[in-house]
Amino acid sequence: MRIFIAGIDGYLGWSLALYLGARGHEVAGADLYLRREWVSEVGGQSATPILSMADRQKVFQEKFKKEMRFFEGDLQDYSFVRDCLSSFKPDAIVHLGENPSAPYSMIDLDHCVFTHKNNMIGTLNIVYALKEICPHAHLLKLGTMGEYGTPNVVIPEGFFEIEYRGRKDTLPFPRQANSWYHQTKVHDTNNIMMACRLWGLRSTDIMQGVVYGTRIDEMGDDERMLTRLDFDECFGTAINRFCCQAVIGHPLTLYGQGHQKRGFLPLRDSMQCLSLALENPPDEGEYRVFNQFEEVYDLTELAHKVQKIGNALGLNVEIQNLDNPRKENEDHFYQADHKHLLDLGYKPTSDMDVELKTMLSDLIRYKNRIEEKVDSLVPNIRWDGSRQKSECISGGNSSSRVEALK
Amino acid sequence: MRIFIAGIDGYLGWSLALYLGARGHEVAGADLYLRREWVSEVGGQSATPILSMADRQKVFQEKFKKEMRFFEGDLQDYSFVRDCLSSFKPDAIVHLGENPSAPYSMIDLDHCVFTHKNNMIGTLNIVYALKEICPHAHLLKLGTMGEYGTPNVVIPEGFFEIEYRGRKDTLPFPRQANSWYHQTKVHDTNNIMMACRLWGLRSTDIMQGVVYGTRIDEMGDDERMLTRLDFDECFGTAINRFCCQAVIGHPLTLYGQGHQKRGFLPLRDSMQCLSLALENPPDEGEYRVFNQFEEVYDLTELAHKVQKIGNALGLNVEIQNLDNPRKENEDHFYQADHKHLLDLGYKPTSDMDVELKTMLSDLIRYKNRIEEKVDSLVPNIRWDGSRQKSECISGGNSSSRVEALK
Repeated sequence: MRIFIAGIDGYLGWSLALYLGARGHEVAGADLYLRREWVSEVGGQSATPILSMADRQKVFQEKFKKEMRFFEGDLQDYSFVRDCLSSFKPDAIVHLGENPSAPYSMIDLDHCVFTHKNNMIGTLNIVYALKEICPHAHLLKLGTMGEYGTPNVVIPEGFFEIEYRGRKDTLPFPRQANSWYHQTKVHDTNNIMMACRLWGLRSTDIMQGVVYGTRIDEMGDDERMLTRLDFDECFGTAINRFCCQAVIGHPLTLYGQGHQKRGFLPLRDSMQCLSLALENPPDEGEYRVFNQFEEVYDLTELAHKVQKIGNALGLNVEIQNLDNPRKENEDHFYQADHKHLLDLGYKPTSDMDVELKTMLSDLIRYKNRIEEKVDSLVPNIRWDGSRQKSECISGGNSSSRVEALK
Repeated sequence: MRIFIAGIDGYLGWSLALYLGARGHEVAGADLYLRREWVSEVGGQSATPILSMADRQKVFQEKFKKEMRFFEGDLQDYSFVRDCLSSFKPDAIVHLGENPSAPYSMIDLDHCVFTHKNNMIGTLNIVYALKEICPHAHLLKLGTMGEYGTPNVVIPEGFFEIEYRGRKDTLPFPRQANSWYHQTKVHDTNNIMMACRLWGLRSTDIMQGVVYGTRIDEMGDDERMLTRLDFDECFGTAINRFCCQAVIGHPLTLYGQGHQKRGFLPLRDSMQCLSLALENPPDEGEYRVFNQFEEVYDLTELAHKVQKIGNALGLNVEIQNLDNPRKENEDHFYQADHKHLLDLGYKPTSDMDVELKTMLSDLIRYKNRIEEKVDSLVPNIRWDGSRQKSECISGGNSSSRVEALK
């Protein structure tokens, strides 16, 4: 298949290029390196060292004996998007080219509006370019489980059949996102669903859980193949951040009571799932939703897992609770279906302990890179629009630790 | 109360200024005259002659012996929005300042993106300015019944309590909008709901049905008080367009089978409802939804009503069905709650025949203004992105009529 990855320079984008390259697909992609800029803006850097795109293209060529075409440009520019698709003629477009950070979108109005424009206009341009250039191509769009929020009922995959006041219908499951970023994903979902209905486009909307992990098998032991791994308060998601904290002796930071529940999956499983969706496209006019995660964990439970594995590796891992910079439910019901991908043959890795051990071993090598940006580990972006570093409310004393590490 | 109307130069905006002025409120507003530009862009004009804003301010002063402050500027410019609110210090903001046209938003990508930016960024700016300047003020936001689409179950007012797989929750009712414009209103709904939850803002989101009518009592017989009334394919909604067609001898144009069902209410009732919402604000942090319409009608039924009243006034009214430029259900279940406003004391006008007679009598005076823009009555913007005048599929022969009228 000919697969075009929008956002090919990112955490998932570069991993997917390698995963698909190894499976014999023709891969091309676009990026504007915004992720690198954003992470730098908020005081972070990738824990793993990453190559420039030019060097990534060389590595891809060397490894898979074929070209990985790259287009540098802005998805907000329609002529750029159209030119990419006209030139590459993809069978599928994987749209990973959005700002993925809830805290970043909550910094202030400018970041809120930027996230709306960047994510939504990029998606609208892709939808219009699909319609104009390759209406039969499959749009594989990255959404998030966060679109659903934390309702008190089981979360189905996108749609649910209900009986309401004596009549029946199958309706989109209500979305209750809790940050501007998550809202933009909901807006995209609504827009893409309509485009499929009106224009006969085909799309898979992935409601992805939190992805963690430093590697996939296709990277082998070649450091040049590594994808980025962020740990700052904006782009570092829970397990990745915990592991980075563990290797530098910083307490793992839970927000508030720390009983938020989320679906998680390792990077290798995310690649497996996206590839299954690509190789089993929806029908024309079909808009389908896959909830993409392996298991639901309580964040405190996860922190304890990281602690256990970390301590076994000789680290001394503490856990602390910070006052929560977000406004969210800290203890709630959470159960979600995730059957569609299993039906397509998804085989979950199912051993988080092994995955965590790999991650910690990888990250120990890059300890210095994390220590260089240690300040970015503790959040200061608050959901009420203010900026104030979270204070420790129980467990290890973050500030003294952070001071000692400086 | 001190009430700020964003979009005060529009069909509802100017009417509401007069309605609230007559009730003794302090009224101010903002506009950039975009509605005048858009209508002109699509080849229409207001059937009723309308004054400039400067003259409207004079008439307001003369009639109510008080100033109506006006701010000319763009809601997409945050400093403008903030300055308006800082300067006027409103108790409530009525947000009517959006592009309200489904066909306009469907013209092409540029119009789609413009509608998204104009409507959503304007709303985000208002939300942030509320938070910064007047967090206790009530945001009365104009949404549309079109946000819900046409589900096969009864449409509640914003939220519904469900039991799903053995658990219960009260959830936002799923939205299934059918144009980019309608989607922007859904996006606004999601964004405002979150802002109320996170920041304790208070808002009433009005899911309004189709408004019709040339006047409210507060205008008296003073032509200078008239609000605009559009009849073109983009900004002319069903009954208003039918009445304009009737007075110039153009067949009333139904789209497709013509059995679309929608909620309707006269302009005077819209003013009554908005005023009731303003005078009974929600609690702090409360986000509430009012479905604002009087009765549901099938469009064919409405065309027959206009025909009957028109013929009684000596007009010769024909009805025709055009091939539908939209992709929509033309015959479907439709039932929606609208109890919240009745609970607050809304007294529906309940006599559409009288309202139609008034409208037709008013519009006969402006027959020439409609005839000048007769071409804009028949749609050529299609939901598939193409442009082609709709053809008559049954009933009177539109094209020969239109030719004769030129």
